[in-house]
Amino acid sequence: MWLEILDSLGVFVFSISGVLTAANKKLDYFGATVIAFFTALGGGTIRDLVLQTKVAWVVDTNLILIALFGAVVGIVFREKLYKFSGTLFFFDAVGLGTFTILGLQKSLNFGTSEIVAVMLGVTTAAFGGVIRDILCNRIPLIFRKEIYAVAALVGGIFYLFLEYFHLPRQIDVFLGVICVIAIRLLSVRYHWAMPVLKSDKQLKDERQEK
Amino acid sequence: MWLEILDSLGVFVFSISGVLTAANKKLDYFGATVIAFFTALGGGTIRDLVLQTKVAWVVDTNLILIALFGAVVGIVFREKLYKFSGTLFFFDAVGLGTFTILGLQKSLNFGTSEIVAVMLGVTTAAFGGVIRDILCNRIPLIFRKEIYAVAALVGGIFYLFLEYFHLPRQIDVFLGVICVIAIRLLSVRYHWAMPVLKSDKQLKDERQEK
Amino acid sequence: MWLEILDSLGVFVFSISGVLTAANKKLDYFGATVIAFFTALGGGTIRDLVLQTKVAWVVDTNLILIALFGAVVGIVFREKLYKFSGTLFFFDAVGLGTFTILGLQKSLNFGTSEIVAVMLGVTTAAFGGVIRDILCNRIPLIFRKEIYAVAALVGGIFYLFLEYFHLPRQIDVFLGVICVIAIRLLSVRYHWAMPVLKSDKQLKDERQEK
Repeated sequence: MWLEILDSLGVFVFSISGVLTAANKKLDYFGATVIAFFTALGGGTIRDLVLQTKVAWVVDTNLILIALFGAVVGIVFREKLYKFSGTLFFFDAVGLGTFTILGLQKSLNFGTSEIVAVMLGVTTAAFGGVIRDILCNRIPLIFRKEIYAVAALVGGIFYLFLEYFHLPRQIDVFLGVICVIAIRLLSVRYHWAMPVLKSDKQLKDERQEK
Repeated sequence: MWLEILDSLGVFVFSISGVLTAANKKLDYFGATVIAFFTALGGGTIRDLVLQTKVAWVVDTNLILIALFGAVVGIVFREKLYKFSGTLFFFDAVGLGTFTILGLQKSLNFGTSEIVAVMLGVTTAAFGGVIRDILCNRIPLIFRKEIYAVAALVGGIFYLFLEYFHLPRQIDVFLGVICVIAIRLLSVRYHWAMPVLKSDKQLKDERQEK
Repeated sequence: MWLEILDSLGVFVFSISGVLTAANKKLDYFGATVIAFFTALGGGTIRDLVLQTKVAWVVDTNLILIALFGAVVGIVFREKLYKFSGTLFFFDAVGLGTFTILGLQKSLNFGTSEIVAVMLGVTTAAFGGVIRDILCNRIPLIFRKEIYAVAALVGGIFYLFLEYFHLPRQIDVFLGVICVIAIRLLSVRYHWAMPVLKSDKQLKDERQEK
C-alpha cells in the first residue's frame, strides 16, 4: 500500500536528516547512526510508550533496517548530499505528513480521545527531531524556527475534521497528508513563522524606555 | 475535593512557569506551549510510564486543557506576569507539595515499595521542571540551586512517617503537602542550599597550593 | 552467582562515574545523586520501558540502594577518587560488559529479535551515560569519543554468535563479557576511535579549495 511506502520513505529521509545534524556537531559514525535512529524512530517510540503498546521497531525489524540504511547512506554520501537538499527537504515534508496521520490513526485505534490522538500524531512526526536536537545539545529547532510541528498539528486537525464526512478512509488519509505537506512547503516558501516570546531582558528594556 | 483543585492549580502554575522559561530562550509560541505542557505534565508522565499504567493525561483530557490554558495565559499575559511573581512562586510551592503526595500515593496504590513511592512522588513534582530545562538546553535548575526537589523528598518521607500513626488519610495528606510547601518557602526565605561538589580543576588547584 | 555480583559492581561504579561528571558541572549533592542514579540505572530503565516489563529497580529495591551507596561514596570520597581512576576505569569496563550481556539476555527472554536484543543490550550498558550527559548539558561522550558503546555492540554480536555452538550458557556469558571488556581496554590503550563526520563548514572549505 502506498501509505506504507511513504512511511518507509519517511523513516529513511528522517534518518538522513539525523546524520546531517550529527555531522555539524562533529559526532563519530556511531553517534551519527544512533542519532539517525532516534530521528527516524524516536517520535513513534514515545507514542507507543504513551499508548502502552509494543514499540513499533521492536515488532517490525524492517523499521530498524530502513533507519540503519538511511544512516549508512547519510554517512557514505555525506559530501554529495548537499546537491539533493531540495529533494531531501521535500521528502522530509512527505515523512512529516505520513507520520502525523499514521500516528494519529494508531492512537485513535487505541481508543484515545481526539485531542490525544492529534498530540500523538504530532509527536510521531516531530519528536524524533526533538530527541535528535537534545542529543546534539541544542534547543529543538521546531520550538524556535519555521512552521514544522504546527503543519503536523493543522493537518491532524484537518484529518479529524474530514472524518465527520464519512468519506472513504483512503481519501481522508490522502488529504490529511497533503495538507501537512502543503503547509510545510508553503511556510518555508513564504517564510511563515510563529511569533517569538519576548525575553525578560527585552521586557525590562521596554519598561525603562517608557 | 480540595486536593483535586490544588492538583489542577499545580498543573496551571507549572504550565505558566514553563512559558516563562521558554521566553528567556526566545522560543516561539508553539515551543512555549510544548514546554508548558511538559513542565506541567512531564513528571507525572514519567511516573506513569515507570508504573506501567495509563498516562494520566491520556485518560483525563482535562489535564491537557488546564495545561494548555496555563500556556495561553502565560503567553497572553507574559508582560504582566512579573507583577505576580510572588503569587506564582507561592502556588508553584503548592503544586510541588500536591504533586509529591499525589504521586507518592498513586505509586503506593500500585504496590511499590516505600522508597520507590517517595522517588516517584518527587519525580511527579520535580521532573516536569527537569524536562523543561533539558528542552531549553540548560542544566536542570533543581540540580544546582535552591532546595526544590529536596523539599518534595523530605515532605514525602514525612508523609510516610505519618502513615504509621493511622490518622485519617486526609490529615496525613494535608500535613505532607504543608511540609513540602513550608520547606520550600523557608529555604528561599533563608537562602538554604545544598553543598556543591568541587570540580576537578578546583581540586587540582587545592593540591597544588599545598 | 558471579554475574549478579558483577552486575551490582557495575551499578556501583556507574553511579560513581555519574557523581564525577556532575562535579565538573558544579552540581549540588542532590543533583549529583540524581545523575548517579540515572547513570547507573537509566539504561536498564529504557530497556524495560521498551520491553514493557516492570522496571528493574521498581521490583528490586537493592538496585536503588547500591546506586545510592555509589553516590554517597562518590560524594564523600570525591577528593580521594582521582587516585583510583585506573581502578574505576577497569570496573567501568566490567560494568559495560556485564550490563550488555544481561540486557541482551533479558531482551531475548522477552522474545525480541536478535537485532533488537543487541540494541537493548547496548542501551542497558551505554545509555545511562547518555542520560547523564544530557542532564549535564553536554553532547553524549559515547557519540564523539572513544570506543565505548561499540565495544558493547561487538561483544553483544559475539555473544549471539557463540550461542549457535550450544556451549553451556555460562561460557557464552563469560566470553561475551570478556569480549566487551577487552575491546574497551584495548581501544583506550591504543587510542582506537571511530571516524568523525565532516561538518558543513569543512566540506564547504574543501570545495572552495578545489
